[in-house]
Amino acid sequence: MKVSEAAQSAKEGSRRLAALKGEIKNRALKEIAGTLNSRAKDIFAANDKDLLRSKEENLAAPLLKRLTFKEDKLNEVVRGIESLIGLEDPVGKKLQATELDEGLNLYKVACPIGVIGMIFESRPDALVQIATLCLKSGNGVLLKGGSEAKETNRILARIIHEASVKAGCPEGWLQLVESREEVQEMLALDHLIDLIIPRGSNSFVQYIMKNSNIPVMGHADGICHLYIDEAADIEKAVPIAVDSKTQYVAVCNAMETLLVHKNTAPELLPKLEKALKGKNVEIRGCGETLEIIDALKADETDWATEYLDYILSIKIVDSMDAAIDHIHRYGSGHTDGIVTENAELAEEFMNRVDTADVFWNCSTRFADGYRFGLGAEVGVSTGKIHARGPVGMEGLMIYKWRLYGDGHIVEDYSSGKKSFTHKKLD
Amino acid sequence: MKVSEAAQSAKEGSRRLAALKGEIKNRALKEIAGTLNSRAKDIFAANDKDLLRSKEENLAAPLLKRLTFKEDKLNEVVRGIESLIGLEDPVGKKLQATELDEGLNLYKVACPIGVIGMIFESRPDALVQIATLCLKSGNGVLLKGGSEAKETNRILARIIHEASVKAGCPEGWLQLVESREEVQEMLALDHLIDLIIPRGSNSFVQYIMKNSNIPVMGHADGICHLYIDEAADIEKAVPIAVDSKTQYVAVCNAMETLLVHKNTAPELLPKLEKALKGKNVEIRGCGETLEIIDALKADETDWATEYLDYILSIKIVDSMDAAIDHIHRYGSGHTDGIVTENAELAEEFMNRVDTADVFWNCSTRFADGYRFGLGAEVGVSTGKIHARGPVGMEGLMIYKWRLYGDGHIVEDYSSGKKSFTHKKLD
Repeated sequence: MKVSEAAQSAKEGSRRLAALKGEIKNRALKEIAGTLNSRAKDIFAANDKDLLRSKEENLAAPLLKRLTFKEDKLNEVVRGIESLIGLEDPVGKKLQATELDEGLNLYKVACPIGVIGMIFESRPDALVQIATLCLKSGNGVLLKGGSEAKETNRILARIIHEASVKAGCPEGWLQLVESREEVQEMLALDHLIDLIIPRGSNSFVQYIMKNSNIPVMGHADGICHLYIDEAADIEKAVPIAVDSKTQYVAVCNAMETLLVHKNTAPELLPKLEKALKGKNVEIRGCGETLEIIDALKADETDWATEYLDYILSIKIVDSMDAAIDHIHRYGSGHTDGIVTENAELAEEFMNRVDTADVFWNCSTRFADGYRFGLGAEVGVSTGKIHARGPVGMEGLMIYKWRLYGDGHIVEDYSSGKKSFTHKKLD
Repeated sequence: MKVSEAAQSAKEGSRRLAALKGEIKNRALKEIAGTLNSRAKDIFAANDKDLLRSKEENLAAPLLKRLTFKEDKLNEVVRGIESLIGLEDPVGKKLQATELDEGLNLYKVACPIGVIGMIFESRPDALVQIATLCLKSGNGVLLKGGSEAKETNRILARIIHEASVKAGCPEGWLQLVESREEVQEMLALDHLIDLIIPRGSNSFVQYIMKNSNIPVMGHADGICHLYIDEAADIEKAVPIAVDSKTQYVAVCNAMETLLVHKNTAPELLPKLEKALKGKNVEIRGCGETLEIIDALKADETDWATEYLDYILSIKIVDSMDAAIDHIHRYGSGHTDGIVTENAELAEEFMNRVDTADVFWNCSTRFADGYRFGLGAEVGVSTGKIHARGPVGMEGLMIYKWRLYGDGHIVEDYSSGKKSFTHKKLD
C-alpha cells in the first residue's frame, strides 16, 4: 500500500474511531494486552531476528539495548495499557457550555485530533505505547519506526490492529509505514495527517520540523539552565545543581549551563566543584569562573551546546536580568530554573523567562510527564501552540463546537427580533 | 528596519509585555482609545489619501468600502477597546494545580504565545482590533496590512505604539510590515514568530499555509453543509436552509451545499425552491433533484465550490451515512448541520462529522465568535491543533508549567527515599 493510501485508510478509520464508545475502546485495549501476552513467544522470536541482523550490521550497543523487546519490556507495555484502561475516556468531555438563547445551547466538547503521524527510532515498546494512546484518545495513527526494528514492529502493529478490530474498532485506524522514503511522503500529506510527533535525535526532529507543513509536536534540543541567585541558599543550590546535571545526563531535561550571580560565585563554586568532580563532571567556565575554580575555558559554542554528557558550562552573571538574557539567547525553551530565597524575585523570573517549564528551588529533572502526574506521556513540546512542556493525552485532543437549536435562525437576531442571552451553563 | 530586525524587536518587546501587570495593559488600552479619538482628524486625513490614491488606481467599490476608516469605524474600534478593558486579564490564570509532593507544587499557568504575525487585507479597523487584542493578551505583533491602506495603517500603528509605550508598555512590541516582499521574509522567521494569523482571500490564506513552517491559525474556505434528514420537520428545515444560504452570502459560514434525504426531498424541495427563488437564489441540483424541481444541473465542481453568492447546490442522498461521506469528501471542516427531529440520529451526526462546528436544527450562520459569546474574536480556525472554530482571545494564549520547590531533587524519588503524592490542588 502507498503511504497516501495508508493515510487515507487511517483517516477513514479515525473518523469511526472518534465516534466509538469508551467501553469498546477499553475492550480493545484489554484484547490487545491479552494478545500481546499470549503471543509473547512470536514477538520475542521476531525481536531475535532484528537483534541478530542488527548485531551483524554492527549496531551500537546502546541502540541494541533499545531495540531489545523481551519479557520486561512486554510486562511494562502491558502495565501501561492497563493504566490506560483505568483512565477516563477523554472524548466527549464538556469543556464549556453556554446558552446562546432560549433553546439554543452551545457546547465545546473534546474530540480526537484525527490522524497522528508518529515517527520514532529503535524502541519497539514506543510503538505499543503510542498506538494504545491513540486508540484510547480516538485517533488514527501512522507509525514509522526504525528499520532495525522492522520485524518486531510488524508483529506488534499486526497484533494491535487485529485485536482492536476484533473488539469492535474500525479497520485501518493503525498503519505501519516502513521505508525511510515513505517519511518524505508522509510529511507532504497535510490533508490527511493532522499532527506529527517525532521522537529521535535532535537533527532528526529538526529535519521533520523544517520539512513539513503539518503541525509538529516535539522538541529538538533541551539546553536547560539553572540560575543561582545572589539570595540563594547554598545548601539547597549545590544538591539541586548536582541533581540537575548528573541524575541522568542523557536526557533533554538535564541542565547544560549553570548561571551564577557574581556575589554567590565565590562561596558556591568551590563547593559545587567538589560535588561535581565527585561525579566526574567536566566543568567549562567563563573567564570569571576560572578565577575561582579550576576548569576548562568555555567558548561561545559551549553556551549553545546540549552536551547530554558529564559536562557542565558555568557562566558568572551580574544580575538576574543578565541570566534571563542568556537563557533567551541560548536556551531552547524547555526547562529553566532559579535558586533563590527571594520569593518576589523567583516570581519575576518565572513570569519573565519564556520557557515551557520554569522552576524555583528544585531540579530541572522534574520536567517529565510521569513526575508531573500527567498519567500517560505523549511527548515533550517546546512549541508554543497547542501543548507545551510534558504533554499528556490531552495533547492528542482538540474540541468541536456542538450547537443544539430548535429551528433557530440568525435573521431573528440580526433584525433585533430576538437577542442573545449568552448565559453560562454547567 | 529589516523584517528580521522588526521581528527581533517584537520578540524582545513581547517578553517584557508578557510579564506586565493587567492594570498597565488596561491603562495602555485607555491611552490608545483616547489618542485615537483626539487624533481623529489626522487619521481621517491619512485615510483620505489612501482612498484618493485607490480610486485613481480603480480599486473595486467593495474594497474601497472596506478601506474607508471614518467616524463610524473609529467609534466601533474604540468600543472594541473599551470592551477589552472590561475583560479579565488572561495572563497568569491558573489552569491546573498539583501537589507533586510535600512542598513541591506544580501550576499550569496561562501565558501569551509570544509574537503573532498578522497578515490582513484592506480594512484598517482590523489593525486596531488585532493590535489591541495582542496587547491585552500580552503578545507582541507583526502587522502586515494591505498596501492600499498604507497611510491609514501607518498612523494607526504609530498611535497605538506610542500611546501604549507612554502608558508603560515596552518599546517595539508592535511592528508594521509594509511591503509584499516582506511577507516572504516573515514566513521564514520561525525562530521569532510563533503563530501566523492570515485574514484574506482563500488563495491568499492557502498560500500562507503552504509556505511557512510557522503554525498558521485560520481557514481557507468554508464549504458548509446542511443535511435535511428523513425525520426533519419541514417547517423548521425551510427557514433554517434559507437563513443558512441567504442571511449573508459573502461569508465563510454560509451554506453552499444542501444534502436532502431521498424520502424528504419530494415534500421539502418544492417549498424550499419557492422560498429560495423569492431571495433570487440560483439552484444547481443533482439529477434526482432535477426530477422534483426546476434547477440547473450541478456537476462535480459544484460540490467543491464555495460560491459566496446567491447560488446553492442541492444533492439528494440515500442516508445520513451518504450525507456524512459527502461532507467529509467535499467539506472544509468549518460548519455542518443536520435538521432532524430524531435526537439520537442528531447525536450520531454530531459525533461522526469531523468539522469545527456541528449544528442541530439551526442555521450555519450562528458559527461566529460574537454569536458564540466569546467576547473578542481573533479569527476562525479549520485547523485541528490549538484552537478550532471561532477563536476568542484564548487562541492567543498558551501556558507554562511553574514548579515551586524547596530544595527538591529527583534522586530522592528515583532512589525510593521519597514518593510522589500527585494530589490535585485548587
